[in-house]
Amino acid sequence: MTTTPSDKALVPFVSVDHMMQLIHYIGAEDMLRGLADYIEVDFRRWQLFDKTPRVASHSAEGVIELMPTSDGDVYGFKYVNGHPKNTREGLQTVTAFGLLADVASGYPVLLSEMTLLTAMRTAATSALVARLLAPKHSKVMAMIGNGAQSEFQTLAMKAICGLREVRLYDTDRAATEKCAANLAGLGLTVTQCTTAEEAILGAQIITTCTADKQYATILSDNMIGSGVHINAIGGDCPGKTELAPAILQRSEIFVEYPEQTRVEGEIQQLAEDHPVTEIWQVLTGAAEGRCSDEQITLFDSVGFAIEDFSALRYVRDQLQATGLYTALDMLADPDDPRDLFGMLQRARSD
Amino acid sequence: MTTTPSDKALVPFVSVDHMMQLIHYIGAEDMLRGLADYIEVDFRRWQLFDKTPRVASHSAEGVIELMPTSDGDVYGFKYVNGHPKNTREGLQTVTAFGLLADVASGYPVLLSEMTLLTAMRTAATSALVARLLAPKHSKVMAMIGNGAQSEFQTLAMKAICGLREVRLYDTDRAATEKCAANLAGLGLTVTQCTTAEEAILGAQIITTCTADKQYATILSDNMIGSGVHINAIGGDCPGKTELAPAILQRSEIFVEYPEQTRVEGEIQQLAEDHPVTEIWQVLTGAAEGRCSDEQITLFDSVGFAIEDFSALRYVRDQLQATGLYTALDMLADPDDPRDLFGMLQRARSD
Repeated sequence: MTTTPSDKALVPFVSVDHMMQLIHYIGAEDMLRGLADYIEVDFRRWQLFDKTPRVASHSAEGVIELMPTSDGDVYGFKYVNGHPKNTREGLQTVTAFGLLADVASGYPVLLSEMTLLTAMRTAATSALVARLLAPKHSKVMAMIGNGAQSEFQTLAMKAICGLREVRLYDTDRAATEKCAANLAGLGLTVTQCTTAEEAILGAQIITTCTADKQYATILSDNMIGSGVHINAIGGDCPGKTELAPAILQRSEIFVEYPEQTRVEGEIQQLAEDHPVTEIWQVLTGAAEGRCSDEQITLFDSVGFAIEDFSALRYVRDQLQATGLYTALDMLADPDDPRDLFGMLQRARSD
Repeated sequence: MTTTPSDKALVPFVSVDHMMQLIHYIGAEDMLRGLADYIEVDFRRWQLFDKTPRVASHSAEGVIELMPTSDGDVYGFKYVNGHPKNTREGLQTVTAFGLLADVASGYPVLLSEMTLLTAMRTAATSALVARLLAPKHSKVMAMIGNGAQSEFQTLAMKAICGLREVRLYDTDRAATEKCAANLAGLGLTVTQCTTAEEAILGAQIITTCTADKQYATILSDNMIGSGVHINAIGGDCPGKTELAPAILQRSEIFVEYPEQTRVEGEIQQLAEDHPVTEIWQVLTGAAEGRCSDEQITLFDSVGFAIEDFSALRYVRDQLQATGLYTALDMLADPDDPRDLFGMLQRARSD
């Protein structure tokens, strides 16, 4: 007897290598634009989604999270860890993978690496929101924190918002040099700065993305002038923030999902009823975005399951045309569904 | 430049085919005993575990669940669906896969199919509990419901409790014939019955495992005499039960995790404060099991995350000796953890 699995038992799997090939095949900037489009579509139908804060398992050294959501037709979840001390041991702070499944049958339809894809979708989300909230014709961004996410953020701002110059700063000079080297030749003016204050000079967009799991003050109040857009990525779990509370008080604050952001984001420093605006409401026109040139807008980004869902949908839609996946024998699927034991017996080689 | 992933980026993956090979390599009965041992070890250290009820996404046609847990060193979760209507379309009611990760780094260390493994661990758990609670020297089991789980249940009762005879009944005669054919030659007396009452004749253990997502009465009160052990598998989600409430009132009830069983198990039919005993307490001696020959003991089994954790631990411990896995390129792992973008750029083939 053959034990060749049926089509239903095979789940398309996008490995890290296939994801890198996919990004290059499509082109990183085009893919960032594509991801932003998928995220925008899903944010516009926000109310359709089954939303639940992520399910977190905290330990002394980090956190492992499951982020599920569903639009009623497709279910998705992401596994993601956050271990700031990992870099000291040569490991990634964040690794991730994700899955899509068919709600009607419960069968998985895509398994994908999501370390790279999360970096791409986080950057696409930041740029989508900056296009919505940053001053018109923003050309200069300060990038504070030059770790694994920094180049993706910069490239997305170029692809989606028309950024022309990035000003880099990190407490670790080697990180800034790495980031500058990676961004060389991508069509941006790249300036390495030795202080955060220097990086912010002339910037309309200020992105903060540092990784310490603690309350830190990356930006203090007197560094922030009027009219800028702050894209705060690094404050993304309880006890981890980057901005001085006084900046939050002066800013109009925009979030993905308030129930999650109040626990994990910069606004964990504020009163529970401090007013915030949800991004999906700005996208649908239900709420206002930037109202004046002087306003400070702040995107307090923590990452939400729907963005991963959109990113996985995007990847799934590229599979057929690119063939950049393998079929994983992950689901037992006997000819007679009640005959799981018979399938096992027939697989016996002796 | 090479884009060969480092060891840390490769996650051992046990496919359906490898799982079938593993079961045959070890021997199904030996593996059931091994799984029961691992489950017993973990039940005995129950209070160590991070326990949370499963995270369920319900739809009209079924449910998709994530079941996470952790013992502080290792984190595990299972993805599992339950779609009773699937069998009508040639699909499995339940498919599953699972993952183990290192709590200290957050890196996954095992991805495994769990459709077969769940059938094995459910059966091992049932038999472990029957060994604890069923009348001494039980030799005969009634198996009500002869679907995908029935042969595994029967074989585990043979391997772990010394079962000699199984009496089969299903409303669908073809299911009973399938089950009897699969069990032929495995060293048991197999009797096909045409009613549930006939199946129960002379049985010391009564296992119910039917799949309709509704309140059904598979066993009515007058069918159950004194001194039996009831192993109720099929009542495992809200709105799905198999036993008449009067049976529950006459039984001493044992459960895995009361918080979950009161929502999903047979006891959803009882008052919220109806007394139940937790299996781990019987295993550690903190609570009594069977107290008399006349007592009806009932294991109201819904399946708990720790059983999956134990099963994945067991599989992981077989990998090195058997080599029955493949290495999955699932985690991006650049040489410099902050240089994810550089890894992506170097993977460019042009």
